Amino acid sequence: MSYAEELGKKAKAAEMSVANASTSAKNNALAAMSKALIENSSLIVSENAKDLAAAKENGMSESMQDRLRLDEKRIQAMAKGVDEIIALNDPVGQIIEGFTRPNGLRITKTRVPLGVIGIIFESRPNVTVDAAALCLKAGNAVILKGGKEAINSNKCLGSIMRKAVAETGLSEDIIQVVEDTSRDTTNELMRLNGYLDVLIPRGSGRLIQAVVNNATVPVIETGTGNCHVFVDESADIEMAVNITDNGKTQRPSVCNAVESLLVHKNIAEKFLPVMAERFKAHNVKIYGCDKTAAILGESVMKATDEEYATEFLDYIISVKVVEDIDEAVAHIRKFGTKHSECIVTKSLDNAEKFSRQVDAAAVYVNASTRFTDGGEFGFGAEIGISTQKLHARGPMGLSELTTIKYLINGNGQIR
Amino acid sequence: MSYAEELGKKAKAAEMSVANASTSAKNNALAAMSKALIENSSLIVSENAKDLAAAKENGMSESMQDRLRLDEKRIQAMAKGVDEIIALNDPVGQIIEGFTRPNGLRITKTRVPLGVIGIIFESRPNVTVDAAALCLKAGNAVILKGGKEAINSNKCLGSIMRKAVAETGLSEDIIQVVEDTSRDTTNELMRLNGYLDVLIPRGSGRLIQAVVNNATVPVIETGTGNCHVFVDESADIEMAVNITDNGKTQRPSVCNAVESLLVHKNIAEKFLPVMAERFKAHNVKIYGCDKTAAILGESVMKATDEEYATEFLDYIISVKVVEDIDEAVAHIRKFGTKHSECIVTKSLDNAEKFSRQVDAAAVYVNASTRFTDGGEFGFGAEIGISTQKLHARGPMGLSELTTIKYLINGNGQIR
Repeated sequence: MSYAEELGKKAKAAEMSVANASTSAKNNALAAMSKALIENSSLIVSENAKDLAAAKENGMSESMQDRLRLDEKRIQAMAKGVDEIIALNDPVGQIIEGFTRPNGLRITKTRVPLGVIGIIFESRPNVTVDAAALCLKAGNAVILKGGKEAINSNKCLGSIMRKAVAETGLSEDIIQVVEDTSRDTTNELMRLNGYLDVLIPRGSGRLIQAVVNNATVPVIETGTGNCHVFVDESADIEMAVNITDNGKTQRPSVCNAVESLLVHKNIAEKFLPVMAERFKAHNVKIYGCDKTAAILGESVMKATDEEYATEFLDYIISVKVVEDIDEAVAHIRKFGTKHSECIVTKSLDNAEKFSRQVDAAAVYVNASTRFTDGGEFGFGAEIGISTQKLHARGPMGLSELTTIKYLINGNGQIR
Repeated sequence: MSYAEELGKKAKAAEMSVANASTSAKNNALAAMSKALIENSSLIVSENAKDLAAAKENGMSESMQDRLRLDEKRIQAMAKGVDEIIALNDPVGQIIEGFTRPNGLRITKTRVPLGVIGIIFESRPNVTVDAAALCLKAGNAVILKGGKEAINSNKCLGSIMRKAVAETGLSEDIIQVVEDTSRDTTNELMRLNGYLDVLIPRGSGRLIQAVVNNATVPVIETGTGNCHVFVDESADIEMAVNITDNGKTQRPSVCNAVESLLVHKNIAEKFLPVMAERFKAHNVKIYGCDKTAAILGESVMKATDEEYATEFLDYIISVKVVEDIDEAVAHIRKFGTKHSECIVTKSLDNAEKFSRQVDAAAVYVNASTRFTDGGEFGFGAEIGISTQKLHARGPMGLSELTTIKYLINGNGQIR
């Protein structure tokens, strides 16, 4: 039996412990986790220091080292995140709908946990705590595979959470951290049918593609966002500048950031210079079409299909002047990743057309794409943003970590 | 560009034609399809005759030939099936929920089509019509890949439907029948990311496994049903016999048929002889444990794990006498396929325990598993029974052929 299979077997054996736990039992376990994280802060910091030392030795960039770093303040933030999940409604046991058939059968559609969830992510160790807490609250066992750069931190966090959970009476095996971070184990996880009910990759486009291409277990794709703002001819220029600037520069490294700007030809000459002026504050680099270059001058680099397809995750944007809304929609259909798309307009017809014809998880009229987020949507914490169409689309909260079960009550009905 | 990619490209280009069509436009197209099927009956019968002739030549079994055969009556039934889909509620455009955030953003969760659906199925040509009509009503384009045995029938049905749809103003490419039934095309369909939003295999366990193992597009697994009846010690014996007999013999070839019988040891001696007597009417063969054999005698064949894991789809059943409900639940967790499971009991505690602990799409208390069916659930027609946990579980009606889209309206909100 492979290492991944061992983890899967333990998780499957433990899943009922959390699936059938009451809301208060699960909240007790979460409270114990939160408390244990704070109590073990110095241990966590010292284990994290090992990862940081190795990272420095391997020449990891400063910004990546910062993502990896855990200090007292960040540990407190993780614990607070767990406390916030305690406050969220428990989705398990919800009766979604029900009806009685003419033959007297009573059919009830209920919400139940998914079972065992696998999560593959990259270096940030706070995901270990965040994902474990969300999965637990939704009644699931979880297998967490973090990046090898954070292995000491993740093992430490996992062992603290397992102990805390066990002390409240749940099985410790509902939370398992993969300690062997080799590629073999990752590949085995992707093919752990019968044990893993779903696998969620969180991280770079490369990681997500590898999972989509190789997994035989059901997968939820998350997080690639080549998001557009289309500035329609009737747009309020100040609003369009604010929304585009916010989408591009408020936090460029995240999936709901704006990567591409489409401008109606009739507003381009007025809008683009104001936009470019605003971008100077963050030194945003522009790849543009010929018309963009004609308006903005030589600072504009030539945009090709490659730039239009790129999720920069940086202070870089691609710009195209379009004939009309139809060209904008067609461009988004070609280059978009079905994440978040925005139109700035005063035209009701165009707002309606854009909303109907753009195929994305979240379509915005006159608001920043940065709102595609579980917290901003009011779901509380989120496990990721789904960019696929099956099961979950957009921000995935606790409900999206559940499935349904039909319960049918009869008194001897046969066909 | 491969043949499958060509189909995918055409389907993607056509999907908006049906995604944004009004309910009445879609119903007009369905009515035209239904009418065209009746009007072209003799053509369909003659094309079907080619498939039947080839089938005879290749030594296809009589029962398989029967599944392949189309006559006037069956064509009328297909047309009537399409008419029934006209009468179903259109799921597209449903507003599932909505709310206004403190910052004034109005978030609306709406129901939208999935996009392009691929369906791979085996010999029955009526699936071609049934699946095309359901996908169309839910606003999707569809690529249909039937078995090579039915290729002439399927091509004929496809061309009749495409023409009918086009005459009402929708794009004919919203319905495409794969004319090249080679394995290459099947493999290409499984990896048609970017064009296929979901692939649904309908048919044998072997087909479904091949798709699960090889697909990179999102898949919905359907239809493998190793369904159990557990006769608890407090069961009404007549009810238990009726439910088990109905589950096993009313239509043994379908996925919601009963394949395995678990009997509490305290009722086995009274129940099993009555059950065996009833099974004689259909000459049901029994694979049993030692205790079963001790009660029923030498007609019982020895059951091993292999029989307990087998979906017979025939007048054959496996039987096991168990210590208690816990052993029954553990057995089902080991051998069940998460389709439909039944307990016959008078104990409220045990009904509750079974309902909570058995992990299946449909859990029955005192009713036949044969009710796991879109029609019996009141959904109208169904595209299949999902045995996975993502997206859809149990009978999949029109709603399950859709996804959601968040529409967000603001007046300049930024973060």
